[in-house]
Amino acid sequence: MAVVLLAHGDGGLLTRELVEGVFLKYFNNPQLRQLSDSAVLSLPGGRLAMTTDAFVVEPIFFPGGDIGKLAVCGTVNDLAVSGALPLYMTASFTIEEGFRLADLERVVASMAAACTEAGVEVVAGDTKVVPRGHVDKLFITTAGVGLVPEKVDWGYHRPVPGDAVLVNGSLGNHGLTVLAARENLGLDGALASDCAPLNNIIKLLQKHCPGIKMMRDLTRGGLATAAKEIAEACGLDICLQEEALPLDPVVRGAADILGLDPLYLANEGKFLAIIDPAQAAKAVDILSQNSYGRNARVIGEVCAGSGNVYLQTPLGGTRLLSLQAGQPLPRIC
Amino acid sequence: MAVVLLAHGDGGLLTRELVEGVFLKYFNNPQLRQLSDSAVLSLPGGRLAMTTDAFVVEPIFFPGGDIGKLAVCGTVNDLAVSGALPLYMTASFTIEEGFRLADLERVVASMAAACTEAGVEVVAGDTKVVPRGHVDKLFITTAGVGLVPEKVDWGYHRPVPGDAVLVNGSLGNHGLTVLAARENLGLDGALASDCAPLNNIIKLLQKHCPGIKMMRDLTRGGLATAAKEIAEACGLDICLQEEALPLDPVVRGAADILGLDPLYLANEGKFLAIIDPAQAAKAVDILSQNSYGRNARVIGEVCAGSGNVYLQTPLGGTRLLSLQAGQPLPRIC
Repeated sequence: MAVVLLAHGDGGLLTRELVEGVFLKYFNNPQLRQLSDSAVLSLPGGRLAMTTDAFVVEPIFFPGGDIGKLAVCGTVNDLAVSGALPLYMTASFTIEEGFRLADLERVVASMAAACTEAGVEVVAGDTKVVPRGHVDKLFITTAGVGLVPEKVDWGYHRPVPGDAVLVNGSLGNHGLTVLAARENLGLDGALASDCAPLNNIIKLLQKHCPGIKMMRDLTRGGLATAAKEIAEACGLDICLQEEALPLDPVVRGAADILGLDPLYLANEGKFLAIIDPAQAAKAVDILSQNSYGRNARVIGEVCAGSGNVYLQTPLGGTRLLSLQAGQPLPRIC
Repeated sequence: MAVVLLAHGDGGLLTRELVEGVFLKYFNNPQLRQLSDSAVLSLPGGRLAMTTDAFVVEPIFFPGGDIGKLAVCGTVNDLAVSGALPLYMTASFTIEEGFRLADLERVVASMAAACTEAGVEVVAGDTKVVPRGHVDKLFITTAGVGLVPEKVDWGYHRPVPGDAVLVNGSLGNHGLTVLAARENLGLDGALASDCAPLNNIIKLLQKHCPGIKMMRDLTRGGLATAAKEIAEACGLDICLQEEALPLDPVVRGAADILGLDPLYLANEGKFLAIIDPAQAAKAVDILSQNSYGRNARVIGEVCAGSGNVYLQTPLGGTRLLSLQAGQPLPRIC
């Protein structure tokens, strides 16, 4: 009997099979088929970006954030990397009977703080309470809408060979932080999630770097998964320089010990941008002056090819990065 | 220690306390404060209605529908009763490890069929898989957007004393069907959920009855809760005639035996409309010709007052309907 596996939710190969084999089979429309961070919809007054995410992170409070901050940042960032200016959100809460009201209030206060920073408003919501044991503590699902400015034309159709690939900072911190908090790995104080709303810094880049071709946020599945999906959707290769990848030493060390590849670990405050190489240095400079872009780097370039992602090692070797298959690390976002 | 109770999710008094004491305390904006079925947002090209709902119904398959059909209809109806033409939806799935893929496909196919009937598209989604025991089978959260036509001005500011109150058919079928299916009450074949997308019939009413002042859908908390919320928000009374309320005999009988009040049972294909009395007969006539309005009736009227709902019995008695307090019947939608 075919059943849903944890790996169907890891953002890798099985997730894609589920999305293509079940969801796209029935919800067959050009917007969903893009599988972008947001759907971009043409309405009378302009283009509306729309996105949704379910948040099931465990534990719900972790260094650097909580499920509420995550829910707001996840939705804001999905809109922002689509080129949209996030405006409004909805939030649905599914709560386990017996959940502490003080914890709920802490989560909601954290969401409100993230909304204020991002400049978005929660305009509609829903609350469901289910009996003990029917859900684990608290799940939140958010949806968001934003307007795409007329001049913005980001997407898989834009990258060309020679474009620069950049990220706004260190990779893998969120995934490792949640794992360490859940499994009591004793890394307290050394690690924190990078969870942050990126719309303000992305808006700044939009203004000063019209050469940006597209962005993706680097959540579930990490840098490797996003890069592979971009390469395939563009029909081009992406060549990354291993030496250039920003990794905090504690992430590098802990991932090594645990046998995890930081390139596949989730981030919640990181994006990948593809940009005209003439503007790459300027973009890195702008990002570096912002707390959410301090370790920004050019990490590689777009090359002619057919959808592969190569990682070039300092010694001249090359590793092919593919979609994750197996190794599910559930409930990290 | 204060904790979340099942009754915090029943749509009644405790739900309101939770919404006002926690959610509105932090998410304080005029759109959310309305507590309408949808938020109506002013955008450059017009007014956008936006809504969300979490669906946690148990069992996920029941006579007349399933969690997928419910999720689409719930969102479509929230938009439609706000006067909007539903356009786009998002759908987030939280799935328990081990859930049968065939059941998932059945749910998704059912969603797609409801979308086709309603003329909406699922343009974005998310899938999370959590370990066995962390969620009960499958929860779905949907969000939706629609455009409010320029001429439509529905809302709590419109009703005046003398307006007619109508519903589009029999009350309580959904709530009782789900309860009967869950508890094996042996009512198989006699009962079915009324779950249906109402946007097409509402659009028809909009076209022919410009005297509609506002609508609400009669989901969690049923007719009584919606009527009480409308009366309070308008600062008027609503006087309902018990004899006029459309109730299927099986619903009346079973609710009686179980000690449930059908006026508080959930519906998923019913709305209450407040309309200029001069157009009430015409509206009932239009509804009666449609399969989703066959038992439409004028059930009462708006009266001068201060937020009370009265139920007038055939013998001349009067019962005051208030918000539900306690008696939680969880996981019905």
